[in-house]
Amino acid sequence: MAQADIALIGLAVMGQNLILNMNDHGFVVCAFNRTVSKVDDFLANEAKGTKVVGARSLEEMVSKLKKPRRVILLVKAGQAVDDFIEKLVPLLDAGDIIIDGGNSEYRDTIRRCRDLKAKGILFVGSGVSGGEEGARYGPSLMPGGNKEAWPHIKTIFQGIAAKVGTGEPCCDWVGDEGAGHFVKMVHNGIEYGDMQLICEAYHLMRDVLGMGHEEMAQAFEEWNKTELDSFLIEITANILKFQDTDGKHLLPKIRDSAGQKGTGKWTAISALEYGVPVTLIGEAVFARCLSSLKDERTQASRKLKGPQKVQFAGDKKSFLEDIRKALYASKIISYAQGFMLLRQAATEFGWTLNYGGIALMWRGGCIIRSVFLGKIKEAFDRNPELQNLLLDDFFKSAVENCQDSWRRVVSTGVQVGIPMPCFTTALSFYDGYRHEMLPANLIQAQRDYFGAHTYELLDKPGQFIHTNWTGHGGSVSSSSYNA
Amino acid sequence: MAQADIALIGLAVMGQNLILNMNDHGFVVCAFNRTVSKVDDFLANEAKGTKVVGARSLEEMVSKLKKPRRVILLVKAGQAVDDFIEKLVPLLDAGDIIIDGGNSEYRDTIRRCRDLKAKGILFVGSGVSGGEEGARYGPSLMPGGNKEAWPHIKTIFQGIAAKVGTGEPCCDWVGDEGAGHFVKMVHNGIEYGDMQLICEAYHLMRDVLGMGHEEMAQAFEEWNKTELDSFLIEITANILKFQDTDGKHLLPKIRDSAGQKGTGKWTAISALEYGVPVTLIGEAVFARCLSSLKDERTQASRKLKGPQKVQFAGDKKSFLEDIRKALYASKIISYAQGFMLLRQAATEFGWTLNYGGIALMWRGGCIIRSVFLGKIKEAFDRNPELQNLLLDDFFKSAVENCQDSWRRVVSTGVQVGIPMPCFTTALSFYDGYRHEMLPANLIQAQRDYFGAHTYELLDKPGQFIHTNWTGHGGSVSSSSYNA
Repeated sequence: MAQADIALIGLAVMGQNLILNMNDHGFVVCAFNRTVSKVDDFLANEAKGTKVVGARSLEEMVSKLKKPRRVILLVKAGQAVDDFIEKLVPLLDAGDIIIDGGNSEYRDTIRRCRDLKAKGILFVGSGVSGGEEGARYGPSLMPGGNKEAWPHIKTIFQGIAAKVGTGEPCCDWVGDEGAGHFVKMVHNGIEYGDMQLICEAYHLMRDVLGMGHEEMAQAFEEWNKTELDSFLIEITANILKFQDTDGKHLLPKIRDSAGQKGTGKWTAISALEYGVPVTLIGEAVFARCLSSLKDERTQASRKLKGPQKVQFAGDKKSFLEDIRKALYASKIISYAQGFMLLRQAATEFGWTLNYGGIALMWRGGCIIRSVFLGKIKEAFDRNPELQNLLLDDFFKSAVENCQDSWRRVVSTGVQVGIPMPCFTTALSFYDGYRHEMLPANLIQAQRDYFGAHTYELLDKPGQFIHTNWTGHGGSVSSSSYNA
Repeated sequence: MAQADIALIGLAVMGQNLILNMNDHGFVVCAFNRTVSKVDDFLANEAKGTKVVGARSLEEMVSKLKKPRRVILLVKAGQAVDDFIEKLVPLLDAGDIIIDGGNSEYRDTIRRCRDLKAKGILFVGSGVSGGEEGARYGPSLMPGGNKEAWPHIKTIFQGIAAKVGTGEPCCDWVGDEGAGHFVKMVHNGIEYGDMQLICEAYHLMRDVLGMGHEEMAQAFEEWNKTELDSFLIEITANILKFQDTDGKHLLPKIRDSAGQKGTGKWTAISALEYGVPVTLIGEAVFARCLSSLKDERTQASRKLKGPQKVQFAGDKKSFLEDIRKALYASKIISYAQGFMLLRQAATEFGWTLNYGGIALMWRGGCIIRSVFLGKIKEAFDRNPELQNLLLDDFFKSAVENCQDSWRRVVSTGVQVGIPMPCFTTALSFYDGYRHEMLPANLIQAQRDYFGAHTYELLDKPGQFIHTNWTGHGGSVSSSSYNA
């Protein structure tokens, strides 16, 4: 008999925790998993004593659902999602809803949304962030797709989502088709950036200031009381303090090869495809790639010399504060770049995105949750049409306040030989962005010189000129040759 | 009657010049263009008095070709190539050869190579570099695809290619399927990097040292007598000197919004897809994206403050030499990254690439031609299995010689507020590459903390561990959640 409000497929940690979260909020959830034994285990253990029901087949699962039927997929992105959709469609009726809560590529979500619309099924691609803890006690949810589904899932989604301020849910309708998964992708890209920025601060503390683990943990705890107040800063302090069974700190024993599962990479690729200079996320992704070349680095470390070892001479306390400000300024650049990408995607796909709303969705529940995102929400409340975060007075002043510290940290790190790909690319972006004249006029001259690509004059924009720079050679301008 | 050795389709500047080049080397070329009037114009003007013949239809063109027929396409990459292939195939016989000399994406070349192989047609995707001048007097040619075609085109290709040293042609067989276009793509990516590095040097000369155009031109002329001896440095000197009709320098009048046609972007995207940290090309592409946001930058320049203006105090002559060394060191990093990408692609696609041969193809004729590439050729001659250019003694010492200057330039530019995305990313890469321990252990700890992604211990690689960092929350490790 139809009793369940919603079904969830995929009982890995995220799926299990989302089910328990929905159960806590009074919804009856039907749990299913391809390997059916997992359903029994779940009901016998984690879900023991809850209202959660299980299903041993998709048919049984569907039969237990109230209409319109709501099914959440929490399976591995890619083929598994298409496989389950294919199996589900014949079992569902027009108006039923399939929600993909995995980290699917937004292009797949666009495709699935269109295919299912043609079949009368309402498809939703929803970003879900917050990891184990978030899923269990309040994730950030970024649903997009077929908007007709929203009224039927809004109560459940906003009910289980994280709450901030006066109970505002970190979940709202993002936009059409792939918008939800695109926003989640950018969230993950920003997450890569935040993590790399923290690593660069940690590296400077450890190798320039020679701080110990407790001392570093304390610094991050202090920072968590400032503008940097965020989940990632908080857990970094906990990680630094964490001791292994032998009483030694665990962190230095961990292999320094960072893994990745693609969403950061996709963000950087989208930035390149749409021509948006999201340099910090790009560098963060590449930093993980470099870290994974552990054996080659070990070999190189024995061969390649760095600068002469110089003992840090300055005032440690004030340099630590410089590092904090460098991290803060770089973080502002990263988010400015991320919102530039969202803006461009909205144009590319004709989405209407509520930027303040997105900041609010990220404000709590997700991995990048922070007080900082509240400030971004405020900036878009002040001006919903804000073209760039850096042009908002709050962030403009924040960066300007940090910039001397930021420049000191970068030039010190450069002298000492600490890699700071994200601190430096953020600074290059800031300095490039505030330059009315960049040296790209030389690039245009070079392209016209060797490839007859033509250029514009500053006082005649829109008019493309080819100069015969050499006096010999053709004056035919290029049409097929690409440089 | 069949008289022509080869046909060329597409009479834009590159096509015209390649034809005239082949004609100079004694080959009879049949010229065709979709807009037939272009054929008549070409025969009546540029090709007047040559052995070049024209065709007013593809049928006529094919009828004029000796067997096996050889047809070069020099048309816009993309659909136009497929359209011509589709029209050509019915007119050709088994064993005939179609060569795509445009900047096609290597994946398209792989597809075309396979499709045509099934039809008995030998397909070649060839990189062609050198711009107008190169095409006319000796380009760099990078042919790959169906190797059965090579004996039939080798004489023509190596005949018209640029020559270096004792007449070695800058053309050799690159590898299977898309290898030629992949190598050309990486060439173009490196070209983006080289051009951006020169822009950063120009920016520092202009805004830190306050040098005038003649002075800067002279500096580049001097640099062209050093390890930096290259086509791009040479034309930069000429561009700096070039005066407009009004007797003023042309360069500062050119709009600083760099255009791009995709191959640099594709290189950066491939680097992300294959997980190779080709950071310098990535930054060079993003620098062009930022330059194209001219209006936004103009607005930002009025709002965002830079550092306090400080007059450069040091010795100008020695800082100029520092800039030269920073450029040289950064360039070494860029090429090291480019060859890392080639190496990874060879693994991904099962290509056997001759790295020294590729350096030789780029040594002359193409846009990035330089004495420097001769040194790379030598490095691979010394050790064909060289894992990374930085591990070769010559380049190791070269970078180490430059590093003090490099660090001085970066820290000075950072204090003054000059954007140097490529100088800085190169330095971050060098410092990261030579670190046995990077701070990525913290990333792994964070990922395990919030996403149960597991990590490895330094002393137990290959064994993946999950720690329950918080004491509460699950100890189930993640399988579907991707962060």
